[in-house]
Amino acid sequence: MAIEASKTGERTPKIRLGMVGGGAGAFIGAVHRMAARLDDQYALVAGALSSTPEKSAASGRELGLDPERCYGSYEEMAEKEAARPDGIEAVSIVTPNHVHFPAAKAFLKRGIHVICDKPLTSNLEDAKALKAVADKAKALFILTHNYTGYPMVRHARELVRSGELGDIRLVQMEYPQDWLAEPIEQTGQKQAAWRTDPKQSGAGGSTGDIGTHAYNLGSFISGLELDELAADVHTFVEGRRLDDNAHVMLRFKGGAKGLLWCSQVATGNENGLKVRIYGTKAGIEWTQADPNYLWFTRLGEPKQLITRGGAGANAAAARVTRIPSGHPEGYLEAFATIYTEAAAAINAAKAGTAVDSAVIYPTVDDGVKGVAFVEACIASSKQNGGWVKV
Amino acid sequence: MAIEASKTGERTPKIRLGMVGGGAGAFIGAVHRMAARLDDQYALVAGALSSTPEKSAASGRELGLDPERCYGSYEEMAEKEAARPDGIEAVSIVTPNHVHFPAAKAFLKRGIHVICDKPLTSNLEDAKALKAVADKAKALFILTHNYTGYPMVRHARELVRSGELGDIRLVQMEYPQDWLAEPIEQTGQKQAAWRTDPKQSGAGGSTGDIGTHAYNLGSFISGLELDELAADVHTFVEGRRLDDNAHVMLRFKGGAKGLLWCSQVATGNENGLKVRIYGTKAGIEWTQADPNYLWFTRLGEPKQLITRGGAGANAAAARVTRIPSGHPEGYLEAFATIYTEAAAAINAAKAGTAVDSAVIYPTVDDGVKGVAFVEACIASSKQNGGWVKV
Amino acid sequence: MAIEASKTGERTPKIRLGMVGGGAGAFIGAVHRMAARLDDQYALVAGALSSTPEKSAASGRELGLDPERCYGSYEEMAEKEAARPDGIEAVSIVTPNHVHFPAAKAFLKRGIHVICDKPLTSNLEDAKALKAVADKAKALFILTHNYTGYPMVRHARELVRSGELGDIRLVQMEYPQDWLAEPIEQTGQKQAAWRTDPKQSGAGGSTGDIGTHAYNLGSFISGLELDELAADVHTFVEGRRLDDNAHVMLRFKGGAKGLLWCSQVATGNENGLKVRIYGTKAGIEWTQADPNYLWFTRLGEPKQLITRGGAGANAAAARVTRIPSGHPEGYLEAFATIYTEAAAAINAAKAGTAVDSAVIYPTVDDGVKGVAFVEACIASSKQNGGWVKV
Amino acid sequence: MAIEASKTGERTPKIRLGMVGGGAGAFIGAVHRMAARLDDQYALVAGALSSTPEKSAASGRELGLDPERCYGSYEEMAEKEAARPDGIEAVSIVTPNHVHFPAAKAFLKRGIHVICDKPLTSNLEDAKALKAVADKAKALFILTHNYTGYPMVRHARELVRSGELGDIRLVQMEYPQDWLAEPIEQTGQKQAAWRTDPKQSGAGGSTGDIGTHAYNLGSFISGLELDELAADVHTFVEGRRLDDNAHVMLRFKGGAKGLLWCSQVATGNENGLKVRIYGTKAGIEWTQADPNYLWFTRLGEPKQLITRGGAGANAAAARVTRIPSGHPEGYLEAFATIYTEAAAAINAAKAGTAVDSAVIYPTVDDGVKGVAFVEACIASSKQNGGWVKV
Repeated sequence: MAIEASKTGERTPKIRLGMVGGGAGAFIGAVHRMAARLDDQYALVAGALSSTPEKSAASGRELGLDPERCYGSYEEMAEKEAARPDGIEAVSIVTPNHVHFPAAKAFLKRGIHVICDKPLTSNLEDAKALKAVADKAKALFILTHNYTGYPMVRHARELVRSGELGDIRLVQMEYPQDWLAEPIEQTGQKQAAWRTDPKQSGAGGSTGDIGTHAYNLGSFISGLELDELAADVHTFVEGRRLDDNAHVMLRFKGGAKGLLWCSQVATGNENGLKVRIYGTKAGIEWTQADPNYLWFTRLGEPKQLITRGGAGANAAAARVTRIPSGHPEGYLEAFATIYTEAAAAINAAKAGTAVDSAVIYPTVDDGVKGVAFVEACIASSKQNGGWVKV
Repeated sequence: MAIEASKTGERTPKIRLGMVGGGAGAFIGAVHRMAARLDDQYALVAGALSSTPEKSAASGRELGLDPERCYGSYEEMAEKEAARPDGIEAVSIVTPNHVHFPAAKAFLKRGIHVICDKPLTSNLEDAKALKAVADKAKALFILTHNYTGYPMVRHARELVRSGELGDIRLVQMEYPQDWLAEPIEQTGQKQAAWRTDPKQSGAGGSTGDIGTHAYNLGSFISGLELDELAADVHTFVEGRRLDDNAHVMLRFKGGAKGLLWCSQVATGNENGLKVRIYGTKAGIEWTQADPNYLWFTRLGEPKQLITRGGAGANAAAARVTRIPSGHPEGYLEAFATIYTEAAAAINAAKAGTAVDSAVIYPTVDDGVKGVAFVEACIASSKQNGGWVKV
Repeated sequence: MAIEASKTGERTPKIRLGMVGGGAGAFIGAVHRMAARLDDQYALVAGALSSTPEKSAASGRELGLDPERCYGSYEEMAEKEAARPDGIEAVSIVTPNHVHFPAAKAFLKRGIHVICDKPLTSNLEDAKALKAVADKAKALFILTHNYTGYPMVRHARELVRSGELGDIRLVQMEYPQDWLAEPIEQTGQKQAAWRTDPKQSGAGGSTGDIGTHAYNLGSFISGLELDELAADVHTFVEGRRLDDNAHVMLRFKGGAKGLLWCSQVATGNENGLKVRIYGTKAGIEWTQADPNYLWFTRLGEPKQLITRGGAGANAAAARVTRIPSGHPEGYLEAFATIYTEAAAAINAAKAGTAVDSAVIYPTVDDGVKGVAFVEACIASSKQNGGWVKV
Repeated sequence: MAIEASKTGERTPKIRLGMVGGGAGAFIGAVHRMAARLDDQYALVAGALSSTPEKSAASGRELGLDPERCYGSYEEMAEKEAARPDGIEAVSIVTPNHVHFPAAKAFLKRGIHVICDKPLTSNLEDAKALKAVADKAKALFILTHNYTGYPMVRHARELVRSGELGDIRLVQMEYPQDWLAEPIEQTGQKQAAWRTDPKQSGAGGSTGDIGTHAYNLGSFISGLELDELAADVHTFVEGRRLDDNAHVMLRFKGGAKGLLWCSQVATGNENGLKVRIYGTKAGIEWTQADPNYLWFTRLGEPKQLITRGGAGANAAAARVTRIPSGHPEGYLEAFATIYTEAAAAINAAKAGTAVDSAVIYPTVDDGVKGVAFVEACIASSKQNGGWVKV
């Protein structure tokens, strides 16, 4: 119950939010809107929901937006909203990858906070350029690596930080799916089409779409920095233009090692994101499909199943927990936590105060690392799996 | 992805909602608010959030309500809101049980739709009286038996209705918890205090609080009507005034049998609601803590694990599914589905049209059955477990 | 690794064993033989494997028995083996229930130890008579309630005995199967035929075949004595002569309560034996299909998963553990433990020494309780579920 | 119930068995003995149980062996047993790895069948030499890659062979343990000492001890031949002389890819052997700790949980299944299946008949592949993870 709009006695006004992308039929746009609504911190007031002005207007109408705030392009939205006294204070960017950079730049340079889907950009050059923009901007940049919002992920991260695991030896990450086991992009499936198109996605297919999630999550929990990797990136489905499977061996700074497997052709897997971390004192295992549980085992002791909201959950988990144990929270709640953490940071920025040190959200730096990871995977694979520094 | 505000091209205006109860510190009030927000069908505009006017005002302020629409009592709210041109169209009642009846009556008779927490009332007399009021009212009455909103529960119900299970033989329900294993009501724990107080809860403790949920869910999925029951209702914790455990044997009309166990002292259980139904052709098992899964086994065939959003999920499940398989939905999503189903019914009522036949929500009749179940448990137990017709 | 033949330096000679029943095609006979072999404590040397002499001889030949020690009846075997200097020292009785009593009597009175399948007898009168015989006999009587041999069951029992659970409040037992969901006894299925025949099984169908197992196991772990029960015993399959489902409410001496459900028509269940026990301090859950795990939760602490052979396993479990954790032991190993415990007791009897106090096996008293349980279920059900003392 | 000694009416005489290694305190020797006993196909009659004659004699005495058949060395045993008319027909070799080759050679060249623990030898040169010996010998060589004996493993293999999975794309294998997370070999733990000693184990630590198991199992089920691998082999525990963790990327002939992870320092893992195989039509997942289950998912269909002995189990599984579904079989049963398959082959050899084509056991060729796998891992790692052909 830790997260609700109201903690201080006075209601903080909702943050005025715009959205780029996310028109009718876009899965992730609807997710961002639900995430923004859940904790009641945002009011969606404007949108460039499609790159086709008519579609943008129609989608806006369906969402109840003021027609004059439904724009045909993000440039238009950035310019006009920045000029309004009641203009948007933040924008969600939920387009295919290649639009992230120009869109984010357009808003950041006008002082509008950006909440952007991952991966950061479609290539490392853009990523670094966006970082440069973000670093100079007066607005915040939040990357929605949404899995970091799960309470048990926060719990796990805190276990590592507090030394409960001892020295980390192994970080094993995997993210198998099966939805691209057949060439559905050739049948017009929209989600598949842009994700397998190098122009929209960049150099990585499964590596960019889900490998970055797994890598981000392993890094988030372990706190480790990747040193180098060796990858065997592959496309199993004939005619597909981007990878749909990758095997990656990892070496972290400080001596820990890792494996990362991402796949879109692992028949029988839905969103099998899993992170396992083993240290000298204890090990943890977390599976996204069953997110309210965390396995925690101290060396030489019985396995413990920590539950969200339960007896063993720590303060880092409790901060982002809405309802009691045994009543599961899911993906949308974790996603909402990213939005609510962003709101805390944005509200602090508005108030000119420091944000609470407990507030955590993925940043442009995490985004750069993610794109660097993808490019390193591709580079290593081109060298037949040679080690590549990141 | 089936549920979002927008399906028809034109945005349906949000339903103006009030709330009775649910002030600061009340678990279930915050849940109702998040549930009402998720699918963007409601705007909370008024509240009688506490029976203490100052607390009600403070809680309203925290929620950003207009101070003049924060009331000191539900009577006041009903009267004043009914008189406003922009008054509430629906109200959520999230108080302890004994307030449900008078509060619901106050709104129903003014044509304001009521969304009420369970159990319906604190006794059967009130329940029947409320039914009489609801049946005559021009407004709808929705009971938040929230577990019926889970997609896999809808899937299970449809399996039964379509005959996939054959003739139902067994309906096994259980709802173990452990949060009242010690007398925490004596230490001032607010949630425990009213739930163990006969004046506020009625005759049933665990039977009313969670037994009704299990019973409702078993009935919802199986479609069976209870004929009679034999119960061994017990209070394990010394000094407690209401039951904290019940064992109930059930006989349904048509010949099926069942067991129901509810407990608040089953150490190690959080919210272990589970329903298992076995027919001549197939059996199903569903557990609330892992709600995105449904076990389904045809006699003589391998067990199937049906997943929410997955390959085997039927249309009844898909209707109330927001996000793809493998990304778990949880308790709040199921609760939100009740609100969204209610919104569909309320909007149809406003439009004077018939509600879509696929829309399902628990009604005042379900509520009467729930209270009758509680009273039958108590009555049977007083007769040392003799069979009692319901 | 605790159990192997050899502990003391000198090999104890194998116990000469006979078998009554268990000819070709009998499931449980083969199980007993594997169980007797695993720890190398027995040599099967004689058999009355079938009530048809030719079949008995053929089955004996298949098992490599000396033809002259393959008998046409247990009476003949008892008489002739008792007269041999190298005659059997113990006998396994693995016939349908109604033969247990006369066969056991024939061996016991000749000083031959009896290892008998459950239930003890087909009626309570016989059970008491057998107890009288066993109590006076110079030979031991061991009942193969094999589930008591699982290491995690021993662990659980020791947890209760050592007070880790506090005062026991609830003992929940269930044993659902589905193999009799259709009337396969009418198609000549041999296992089904005798189990649904009152002459061979006694008054109980599912209650006798599996209800006794569940009841025995709940009693074994909890250490509680049943005071009274109320049962709703039923036959779902038309034409079946014995019950195939039972719902039973239990009251134990000292105030604990329980539920027991056994079913042979619960579609999708194989051998779903499960025992859950909740005390004031902690709770435990054990499932036979996954026997190497025990859930253990102290009130207010995280759940622990104790594993056979693992860090948290206690000495009572270790005594009956053969191989390290993570390499599962199963049903045959647990069954073998009953045989090996029996061997320890028989060897002590042979040596005239006291048996090690850690040795545990089910006795004739457990058998009498099991039959009394079945008859009480039937009696209660005939009184429409009235409470019956046991 | 498919496996019992007796199928044909006449009892096949037991195979006279000797054992090399496996004296007091050796885990795996006791396992082999239980495995040999379970299906009653072998009689242990001789042993060179320790390299210290006194210990060998003492261990033999504990096992009830004839003192004159307890030998001080395998050479002596091979020579003397070969000279006896009732000499052993087969021998189990359960020593540390480096003894496998000379011991096996001593028996094979005398026409005594060899049942040998894995890995085949401590280096590839020996492995190839042993293969040459075995290929020429009149006796059989069986390698106890025991996990291939699990019924659900057999089921999985048959699924692949019958084309149910389509073309295999991915073979993911892992075998994490944690028992060597600390340097227990330095404290005199005997099992740890020889496994971390290059002289006794060969070049591979975790790779040889458990990596070979995972590799063998993935190959056994998938039927694929490894083409090349790239490995990152590492020793985490300071002072340890052999690897305790390995990450391996695999490329199979025909285009499938794989990952293999083995670890002895993954805190919280007991024997976490897991194989997942994904094809164009379906995927399977099997976990050794829960061996009676196999997940099987056809693309676009619900997940199925196949159970040993259950409705969906195929004939390949049924052949090696002893007891009905729901009563778990475990590690010893799977191990016993290797022995029983070996007995079928040995008996056929004795009879001069062809062995039933359904009989499967790991051979010297599998052993050579396993050792080649270990050496390729080490070689690749020395080249900093370059691809090495096997």
